[in-house]
Formats: sequence, C-alpha cells, structure tokens
Amino acid sequence: MNSFGRYFRVSIFGESHGPAIGIVMDGVPAGIPLSEDDFTEDIDRRRSGGDGTTPRREPDCPEILSGVHDGFTTGAPLTVIIKNENAHSSDYDLFRDMPRPGHADRAASVKWNGYNDMRGGGHFSGRLTLPIVAAGVVAKKILCRNAMIPINARCIEIGGIDFSSGMKIMYICDNIEASEPSDTCRFGPCEECPSRSAVEVLPIPVIAAIERAMEAGDSLGGVVECVVEGLPAGLGEPFFDSVESLISHAVFAIPGVRGIEFGDGFRASKMKGSEHNDPIGKDGLPQKNGAGGINGGITNGAPVVFRVALKPTSSIRKKQHTMNFAKGEMSDLSVPGRHDSCFALRAPVVVEAMTAIVLADLVRMPI
Amino acid sequence: MNSFGRYFRVSIFGESHGPAIGIVMDGVPAGIPLSEDDFTEDIDRRRSGGDGTTPRREPDCPEILSGVHDGFTTGAPLTVIIKNENAHSSDYDLFRDMPRPGHADRAASVKWNGYNDMRGGGHFSGRLTLPIVAAGVVAKKILCRNAMIPINARCIEIGGIDFSSGMKIMYICDNIEASEPSDTCRFGPCEECPSRSAVEVLPIPVIAAIERAMEAGDSLGGVVECVVEGLPAGLGEPFFDSVESLISHAVFAIPGVRGIEFGDGFRASKMKGSEHNDPIGKDGLPQKNGAGGINGGITNGAPVVFRVALKPTSSIRKKQHTMNFAKGEMSDLSVPGRHDSCFALRAPVVVEAMTAIVLADLVRMPI
Amino acid sequence: MNSFGRYFRVSIFGESHGPAIGIVMDGVPAGIPLSEDDFTEDIDRRRSGGDGTTPRREPDCPEILSGVHDGFTTGAPLTVIIKNENAHSSDYDLFRDMPRPGHADRAASVKWNGYNDMRGGGHFSGRLTLPIVAAGVVAKKILCRNAMIPINARCIEIGGIDFSSGMKIMYICDNIEASEPSDTCRFGPCEECPSRSAVEVLPIPVIAAIERAMEAGDSLGGVVECVVEGLPAGLGEPFFDSVESLISHAVFAIPGVRGIEFGDGFRASKMKGSEHNDPIGKDGLPQKNGAGGINGGITNGAPVVFRVALKPTSSIRKKQHTMNFAKGEMSDLSVPGRHDSCFALRAPVVVEAMTAIVLADLVRMPI
Amino acid sequence: MNSFGRYFRVSIFGESHGPAIGIVMDGVPAGIPLSEDDFTEDIDRRRSGGDGTTPRREPDCPEILSGVHDGFTTGAPLTVIIKNENAHSSDYDLFRDMPRPGHADRAASVKWNGYNDMRGGGHFSGRLTLPIVAAGVVAKKILCRNAMIPINARCIEIGGIDFSSGMKIMYICDNIEASEPSDTCRFGPCEECPSRSAVEVLPIPVIAAIERAMEAGDSLGGVVECVVEGLPAGLGEPFFDSVESLISHAVFAIPGVRGIEFGDGFRASKMKGSEHNDPIGKDGLPQKNGAGGINGGITNGAPVVFRVALKPTSSIRKKQHTMNFAKGEMSDLSVPGRHDSCFALRAPVVVEAMTAIVLADLVRMPI
Repeated sequence: MNSFGRYFRVSIFGESHGPAIGIVMDGVPAGIPLSEDDFTEDIDRRRSGGDGTTPRREPDCPEILSGVHDGFTTGAPLTVIIKNENAHSSDYDLFRDMPRPGHADRAASVKWNGYNDMRGGGHFSGRLTLPIVAAGVVAKKILCRNAMIPINARCIEIGGIDFSSGMKIMYICDNIEASEPSDTCRFGPCEECPSRSAVEVLPIPVIAAIERAMEAGDSLGGVVECVVEGLPAGLGEPFFDSVESLISHAVFAIPGVRGIEFGDGFRASKMKGSEHNDPIGKDGLPQKNGAGGINGGITNGAPVVFRVALKPTSSIRKKQHTMNFAKGEMSDLSVPGRHDSCFALRAPVVVEAMTAIVLADLVRMPI
Repeated sequence: MNSFGRYFRVSIFGESHGPAIGIVMDGVPAGIPLSEDDFTEDIDRRRSGGDGTTPRREPDCPEILSGVHDGFTTGAPLTVIIKNENAHSSDYDLFRDMPRPGHADRAASVKWNGYNDMRGGGHFSGRLTLPIVAAGVVAKKILCRNAMIPINARCIEIGGIDFSSGMKIMYICDNIEASEPSDTCRFGPCEECPSRSAVEVLPIPVIAAIERAMEAGDSLGGVVECVVEGLPAGLGEPFFDSVESLISHAVFAIPGVRGIEFGDGFRASKMKGSEHNDPIGKDGLPQKNGAGGINGGITNGAPVVFRVALKPTSSIRKKQHTMNFAKGEMSDLSVPGRHDSCFALRAPVVVEAMTAIVLADLVRMPI
Repeated sequence: MNSFGRYFRVSIFGESHGPAIGIVMDGVPAGIPLSEDDFTEDIDRRRSGGDGTTPRREPDCPEILSGVHDGFTTGAPLTVIIKNENAHSSDYDLFRDMPRPGHADRAASVKWNGYNDMRGGGHFSGRLTLPIVAAGVVAKKILCRNAMIPINARCIEIGGIDFSSGMKIMYICDNIEASEPSDTCRFGPCEECPSRSAVEVLPIPVIAAIERAMEAGDSLGGVVECVVEGLPAGLGEPFFDSVESLISHAVFAIPGVRGIEFGDGFRASKMKGSEHNDPIGKDGLPQKNGAGGINGGITNGAPVVFRVALKPTSSIRKKQHTMNFAKGEMSDLSVPGRHDSCFALRAPVVVEAMTAIVLADLVRMPI
Repeated sequence: MNSFGRYFRVSIFGESHGPAIGIVMDGVPAGIPLSEDDFTEDIDRRRSGGDGTTPRREPDCPEILSGVHDGFTTGAPLTVIIKNENAHSSDYDLFRDMPRPGHADRAASVKWNGYNDMRGGGHFSGRLTLPIVAAGVVAKKILCRNAMIPINARCIEIGGIDFSSGMKIMYICDNIEASEPSDTCRFGPCEECPSRSAVEVLPIPVIAAIERAMEAGDSLGGVVECVVEGLPAGLGEPFFDSVESLISHAVFAIPGVRGIEFGDGFRASKMKGSEHNDPIGKDGLPQKNGAGGINGGITNGAPVVFRVALKPTSSIRKKQHTMNFAKGEMSDLSVPGRHDSCFALRAPVVVEAMTAIVLADLVRMPI
C-alpha cells in the first residue's frame, strides 16, 4: 500500500503524466501556520540539486486542497497536489516493448498485468518525491513545535569520490570567486560587503566526474548522510518499531536507494566490541555515537546519524543491449530525453523529508 | 508497537527473565501441518551458531498454546511460548546504576521511566529472537505452500575477515578430518561410507580471531548475506511497501543490526549507470542482478539478495570506563557472565526468519 | 484518523467550503474499466434522495486525479476529487459563537482548539459523503469482478412511518400517473409503449409528513435497510474483524447515524433461543436468516441484512434556545440557509457505498 | 485479524479446549501498578452474571506472562493467559456433522476448510471473552490514570422485560431480606449494623422468565446499557475513527451481539429535529444528551451512553430440526451439556471491557 505512519500518516498518489500528483497527511495537529509559500525552499532544493546553482522558481507549485484555513492547519486531513504539465507521453510506448534496464518498467508491467501507466514512469516516477518533499515540510513543522529538531542531509560521496569532510565553501566577493574570503574589496571590510556571499560548491573532481558522465551519456551514484539533532531520548520501540526500522522503511521508499547504515554502519561489523561500544559520559550520552543515536531501537539523546546509498540514474543515453519483447530479440536501447546524470545530488532534501515524516510520527507517539 | 505485518502478522512479547517469551501469529492459513518438533532445526541453528559444532537439544522447547489442532493449523491465531528458566536476576541490579555501553539499558530506562525490567536485558534481550525464529518456521511453511521459495542466510564476514566465497567444507571420515574427501577408508569406497560426513566450518583465521577476542574479553561483529530464490515477479508496492522497505523494517528489528544493503548495495553508489544497470535477458530477468531482485520496490523474478551488518557483542568482560549514575562519576565496568563473543554467528537463522515473516505477508497480499 | 480498510483502503479529505473534497483509494486491482461517467448514477442518487423526482445532472462532477489510464485502473492509488463551488462562507461565523444544536460545531472547536474550518461544517459536512459515494462505485466494481454481489439499500421508515413492505410503484403512461399499469394507451399495448415508465414513490403519508416538517421549519429522521446478496460463506474474522464490526465501523462514519442492527437486531433480544436460532437447511443455509447472514462474525452464505437508524437533520429553521458563547447567555437560534428536511432520504446510496467499501476489503482478504 | 487498537492494541488468541487462551496488550504505559489479583473482581462478575449470587473464586485465574515486573507494568507488551482445564472434547465431534443452529460451527468450517478446532466452539467460544475482560481491567487502569472515567454497564432488559428504571435493591439485615432497609435490628441503628448489606437483584418476573426458559430447555436474550462518565470533550475523529465507529467495532466482536445504538438510538429516527436536537447549555454541554455524548464522531463532554442487543443463547436443550451433513438429511438436535440460559446476564462486564479497550486507545491518541 502507499501510505505510511500511525500517528502522522501520509498517503501518496499520482502518476508522472497524469493530471496531478499529491499526498494526503493525516494526524496533522491543528494550529500550525502553513501557506503554499512554505513549500518553496525545499521544493527548490529538490529541483536544483543543491549544486551551487541559483535555484529557479518553476511551475511545480503545490496547491493545498484541504486541511488549512486562514493560514493555519485545521486538524483535518491536509492534502497537497502538484499539477502535471503536458508531456510527450508517446515517448514511453517504446518502454512497454523494451523495458529500460534498471527501471521498474518490467516489474510493474508484470505486477499490474500491463495496465500500469508507463508514461514518465507513471506512479514509479522520481517525480513522486515532490509530494514527499511537501509532506516533509509539514512534518518538519510538527517536529519543531516544541523544540528545535533540525534535520540536515547532504551528499558526502558522488561517483565514488568521498567529500564527507565537507563541501568546499566558495566566497564570492565583487564578482570574484575565491576559496578564501578576501580581506578587503572596493566596498570596504569584507564582513560588511553587500556583494559578498558564500556558497557550498561541489569539489572540482566531482564536477569533472559529472561532466565526463554527461558527455558519455552515462550517470553517477552517490551517498547521502543525514544528521538529526535535538531528539529526546526514549523515542522508538524495541522491536518492530525501532527507530532504525521506521527510518529504513521510509528511506527505501525513495526510488533508487540501495542501502542504509546507522552510526558506524557496515564498519561496525569489522570492529571489536571494545572499539564500537560507546561508554556513557557524565551527561548520560554516548561519547562516540557509533550507534548513530539509537540503542535497542530507542533514541539515546545523541544525534541520529545515517547514510544512504543511491544508485546511478537508470535512464542513460549510452547504448544498452537489452530485450525487445515486441521483436522477441535483444536490441540496443538509448534512453531518449533529458535526465539527471546524478539524481543523488537532488536526494538530500528527499531523505530529510522521509526522516521528518518518520520522526513526526514518533514524537506524536504517546509515552 | 511490537507487531508487524498486514496479512501475516506477528506480535512479540516477553522478557528474558520473566515467566515466558512468545509470539502470536495472526493470518496463518488453515490446514498447514505443524508440530512442536518442526521448530527444532531452526531453534538449534540459532543456539549453536551453525559453527560446525554438533547442535545439542536444550530446554528452549517452544510450546504451542493456540492455533493448532490435530497436527494442523486451524486458521485461528497461532501462539508459541518458550518458558524461561530461573536465572540469577540479581546480577542485573548493577546495570540500572551503570548502564552497559552499547546496550539499551540507559535508553530503555529513560523511555519507561525506570519501570523497565532490566533482568537479562528484559524485553530488549537477544533471547527474544527465539520466538522470531519460531515464527520464521511457520512463515517458511506459508511461503512454500504452493512453490519452493528457499531462504538461505549465512555469515560472509566475521571480524573483518571476508569469506563470502564460501565457508570451507571439512570432510570427516573414520573420525579423521580432512579438507578433501578421502578416496578410501576401511569401510570401502568413500561415497557409501557410513561414518562419512561433511560439515561447513569457519575458515581457520576466523576461528583464530574469535579465540583471540574471547581471550581478550572482547567481541567481534560480522556480515550476514541472505538469498531468496523462487519468488515470483510482481511482489511489493512502489513506495512505502517496497520489498526493501519491508525487509529492512523487519531486519532492523533484530538487535545489533547496523546496516543493510540490497544487490550491489553501497558499491552501487560508486558505479556508473552503464555498469550498475541490468540489461534484461530473453528470459525476462535481469542479467547481473545488481538490483538484488527488486526494481521500483517490486520483485523482478531474480533472487532477492541482501547483506546485513551486525555489530560486535556489547557485553564484554574487557574493562570499559563509563558513567556510574549511583556514584555520579565515571567508573570501570567489566560485564560479568557468559556472553557470545560474536552473536553474528547465530544471526543467519534470525535473518531468515525475519525475511520469511515479511515474505509470508507479501505472498498473501492480494494482486 | 480518516482512513479505513486493510486491503482496499480509502482516505478521505476535504472541507465543505475549501478548494475540493476527495478520496484516495489504495489497493484497487489493475484492469478495472473506470471513467468519470461511472460515478454519475450513484452521485445522482445521493443528490436527489431517490424520492421519485427526476435526477438532475449538477456540477458535482468527480475528477479522477490518479490511478486510471486509458479507461482502466492502473493498480496505483486512485484519487477522485470534487471541486467546491464558491459559497457564502460568512454565514458560518455565527456558529463559532453559537454552536448549532445537534452539530459537531462545538465538539470540533474543542478538539481542534478553534482552528477547525467551520464554513459549511468544514470537514464534518455531509458533503463529505460525496467522495464516499465515489469510492463506493469503485468498491462495487471490485466486489463484482468475479461474481454478482448486489448491494441494495433503501429507506424503510421516515418520520416514524414504516413502509418496509416496499415503496409504492407509480406507473406513468402517456403522462398519466396511475397505481396500476394501464392496459392500453394511444401507443398500443403497454409493454412496448415508449412513454411508459415506472417509478418508486414514497407513500403519501410520508410525503405529507415531510411537507409538514418543512413548513414548520423542522426535520425528520428515518431508517435505511441494506441487503447484500451473493456473498460467499467464510468472509470475516471471529473477533475484531467480524463482518458486523467492520460494517458498523464504516456505517457509524456516516454523519447522523444513531444505531445499527443485523438480522433480527434488537428484536432478537426479546426472542427465545428456539425462536431466534436458525436451523440449517439441506442447502447448508440458515432457513430464517435472523442472524442477518453472519454467524460468529463470519458470513454464512445467506444475504447480509442490516438496518441503520438516522437522526433528523440538525440544521432547522425552527427556533432553538441555545448558548451564545460570545454573549455569555442563552439565545434563540434559527439556522439560516436551505437544508434537507430529511437527509435519511439521501442516505441509502451512502450506506451502500460504505458497505461496498467494507466488502471490497473483505473479498480481497486472503483465505 | 484478531487484534484491535492503534495506541493501545490487544491481540486475542486461544481455543476453548486448547492449552490456554490469552491476550497480548501493546501500548501499555510503564508504571501502572498491576497484579493478578486485580483481575479477580471483573473475572468474577463475568462468571456469576452479576445476578445477586455470591461470586465464587474459581480456577479461571489469569497468569501474567510478560510486561509486569515488581508489581508495575514495564512498558513492554503485557500478556495474560488463562489455562484451560481438561474438557470432554469428544462431545463436539457431533457438531462437525450437524452444525448447531445459531452457532458459528458451519461458517467456521467453510472458512477454514474443516481445519477449525470445534471443541467447545474453538476460537469462537464465549470463553474468549475471559481474556477480553482481563484486558479491560488493564484498559480501565490506563483510562483512570489522570482522571476518574467510570464505565458502568448493566442489563436493562431480559427476555423482553424492561427494567431500565433500575434493578431492585434488596436489603439484607440480620439474615432477613427486605425490600426496604429495616430501621433497627438487634445490633442497633441500621447504618452501623455490621451484618447489613444491600444487593441488586433481578426483578421477580425476570427471574421467573429465566426459570421457565431453563425448564423448557430454552434461552433468553437481553439488552445491556453502558454509560461512561468523565470523558473529556474532543476525543475521536470525524469519519472512520468516530467514537461510535470504534465502540461498535469492538462491541460487535463480542459473540452474540445483534445491534447497538447511541443516545436516543433507533428512537431518534422517529423524532423531529426540534425534539432530538440538543440545545447547548451555559456549561457548554448538551442539555438532553440524546446524542449519547458524541457529535460528529467526537465526544462532547456529556456521558457516552449506548445500548447493546444480545441474542438468546444458541446452545439449547430443546429439540431443533436441522441438517445432518453426515446423513444428508434433516434430523433433530438437542444440544447436550450445561449452558447459560441467558448469557446477556454475564455480558455487562464484557461490554465494559470492550469500551475500556476503545477508550484507552482514544485517550492515548495525540491531539
């Protein structure tokens, strides 16, 4: 089924080339200020990929159909839709005969006996992460009603290049880019300079790798790390509603996820107990946080930390030799159209949204 | 909450040192042959760790309280309990004051305001995997009612030593162990020899690493790989009930899991699309199975393959410097009692059980 | 929460004067033919109250947002919305100060701390039965995929006047109404007469009672009986998913329902066992059906029969003396606007829809 | 499925003649005092039927298997079982061939393909209300943690004899029964008399009707009324989680229930709006409570009031002519064994338990 959550529940719907995609949120407390503008920032982050380029305001504007009145949530189910533009749907007839490698085309056709809407990937389209981002905006607001609980996800690896030590900050002053802030410019001391800005940029080798992949009609994968601070200890349940169970459940609902690990993750399996174990400090918190903020499925008060592996984009221009069921023989396929060469760059805000959806549910769980 | 599944649902209960632990299974079809003996094999695998030693029959005998009559499931809820033996519960008073590093002692006390039963880890004990293994036995029977769907999990890495290419087979003939079968023995040709047997044994370096850890009062982690064959294409749902979502949800309910990855997993994030993508063959199946048998959350007909990272055992004899809340100061703690030095060795049958629980639910989902 | 069902699940949303009301259906099988025209008949029945007047085609046209492609359901979530027209919302400011007797105005304001949308009753409006009727249309199609399972609900009592023996049939021929078909008319033998029609009409005393209530600015209640034929034996579960549990759960979600009874219902509590018990006949079916088609929560193969008590419409023109919270004193209230004088007349198709929603869920339950 | 509730969830299991029956409760807050003695009073009420006879302590003692430690709930799942005594199971072979009229024998055999345990009615036995009463005890404790929320159910009609104005109180003083308290006795003024007691007794005509039914080998039905005081306004949800939906769902899980009505109930459908509508008083409460404490599915602060229709006991000694499937012909059946002639007398505490289970769930719902 296509819904998730017990106390804060989302139900997703829509196909890429149908009239609209959307999400219903149930369990939204009454009295939270909300307008359509609140979605802009995260929708923009999803669109631009946070790759340092100026976010552009494009037509993917969410419309609130229900659950908000006079600028506040009403307590009733909150529905957001995003209308689809007309698209060249005929492009997709091909994929019924020749399912795209790495895509759900084939599995979906078997599941739904050929009735699935294949245009733009239909219900399987990455476009469906748009309503998830919208729900994430509401979830973040629920989460932060009583205390600040910031969720921050970012790419830490692209195409095998690890930049987890942090993205490079570029300083732009007087239209000159530099890796360090300039001391002075024609406006005077740097701190007060009106033209000064600092942006996170991908490391040069990553940008180069992306460009090479694009030129080759190929694509890259990546790893997203997510950190949640400010969560109280005691959330989650020992077994089936462990915090890891719930987060991984939601994160694997993001198209293209291949793995998830918490805290020390796969590295923990190579460690000794004395290395991985976390002595508890005077503040009651683990001192190294190798468990990623969770013990026995329950938050322990330290930041929740996890990493998500995202595969390279499946739709590539580069030729692939795959089955053509109409012809009954293997043929070459070059997927037409414009596609992300690395959708992992756009994934952090989606991972944040899923995390917020899970945590909004958890903080509403009665203790 | 402590239940899982929509069509085949399990509800787990019990504390390590309470009267009994158990599990209720709802949605078991009527007419499946089942007796208490059916649990023996998997319960033994969990106990012995499958490390090549002879499994011993010990008192952890499941009792069927409901749902079985005259040797067949009745269709009504099926309940299995395992009684707990008397244990030295006083040992555990210490951990209220001085929560064990790596354990849920502290998080559980915060969550339940100190009312949690801490004896033996209480409801957080690894002993609770016993009823999960029992439910797995029933789930495997449900799964294989109409077709063979074998689930096989095994350790592929212990203490950082990768032996994924397969465990060594030791041939025992006439009480002599050898790495190759002997051609002859006093009974005649090897094939008919009544005393001949072959067992999987851990590689020597792994056994040595375990022994070193035990001597040092320390512990090791490991990685378990699970392969499911025979699943039809079309199981699962696009978003929140993706096969990965459901399996990861259940697997993270196993105490001590730190990560999970499907198919190429974290390695996929370092690959190009043209490498990771799976051309579909004439048989309609992906040719490399880098997606681990799942596309868009839906099974594609290829084997489902995933790997689980397990942390080293938390309870270690080796001294740890951690907070003593009674004294209000950091103190040394050496966890007393006998503990696994590597519980990952006992985990494969638990991973199989969780997988079977998920898949029994999925195959009962109407299409 | 505002969703219902396990295998066929509906999630309702919307407020009476918001942009739109709607419903998401999850678990719809792929391949069912469906267009927006399919909703017309039941939507018309809900509108006109089935009181013998000509149904008019009005603007409450459902739009399918997702889950249908090329005239067939796709298997993905099916969303239907109905846009709201502009309405005189200012009318409703009054009711915040002076909650209407019999309405949810007061309870909703307490629940949602005054943030609820009160315009037109907001999320509590009877208008929300419109998407339920739409979901009922889809549910009926699911139910009848393999076998005919007709669901028929009708009013059997209005304003205390019992007409359960059946509504009167009026024959209209050549524009002349008569209680019996005429043998001949100018077109020739009656059977082939192109202008001939037969309509069910309410008994004269009921029509008179309704008119008297309208004149007095008052309202009437009624009883709806629902009969489901063709259900196989064996649906439902012994305890919490008994057929009665599920149907009553859904039926009490209809605004204004005060009671429900199955088979002999409340009359059964006055009977002796030898009277109420149902001997089983040679066909394996109960011979009197006093249990309403259900034993031990499970369908027994006989028609499922139940009756629903509906209260009189709460919004009345007649003066009521009730609390004015703004003034802090009791005042007279005459609810303005046009309201049904007996919404029970429009309820049968809503009861059918709820029943279909429950049964579509039940027939999809694996056995 | 056999579980119910979202925040406080019960899962029932067991067969009448199996090893044990029981219930798992999930979502029990930690720190509630609970011992096995706490179950005695309600279990005794269920046993004796509250008919004025001295409750006897019999072997149906609940055992707590999990979730309680040192006299307090731990927060982990709470499991209670009641062991079954040996019973004459062979009695029940007959009913496979000749299903008892009014029982689930036939429907259950069809549902579960003949694998159902028919001994004592198996999972369909009224004995399963025993764990429900046990769960009710826990639910009542949850409900009353912060405020008194008394739930009181009692029979108001038996065999068609209405005594809703209250059961007669008999005063027993110095071993003399009287319908009024005596002014004096040998101990002195009545109020301080140590031998004085007052008991509720059924009206004489009811007792006579029960005796006549017993002599005739027949049975009687009845009506139970339940009143819940002290509930805050604002509980419940507008549609599918309306308070009536949830209570009726749980109440129809009690074997033998044929109908339920809230407030004015079926009588409301015969009333005018001006009669049934409830003006709101200065205290913010409805003045007549014809809605039974609920508007729009939401509690309004007035007592929740509902009535439940219970059928006459199905198992009767009196001959019934019904199908014998082994012989292929209609035959006479006289159900052997000792059975209640009116189980409605024992139902009030079961109705209370179900109500408490629903309300414990509702009060734990986050607002």
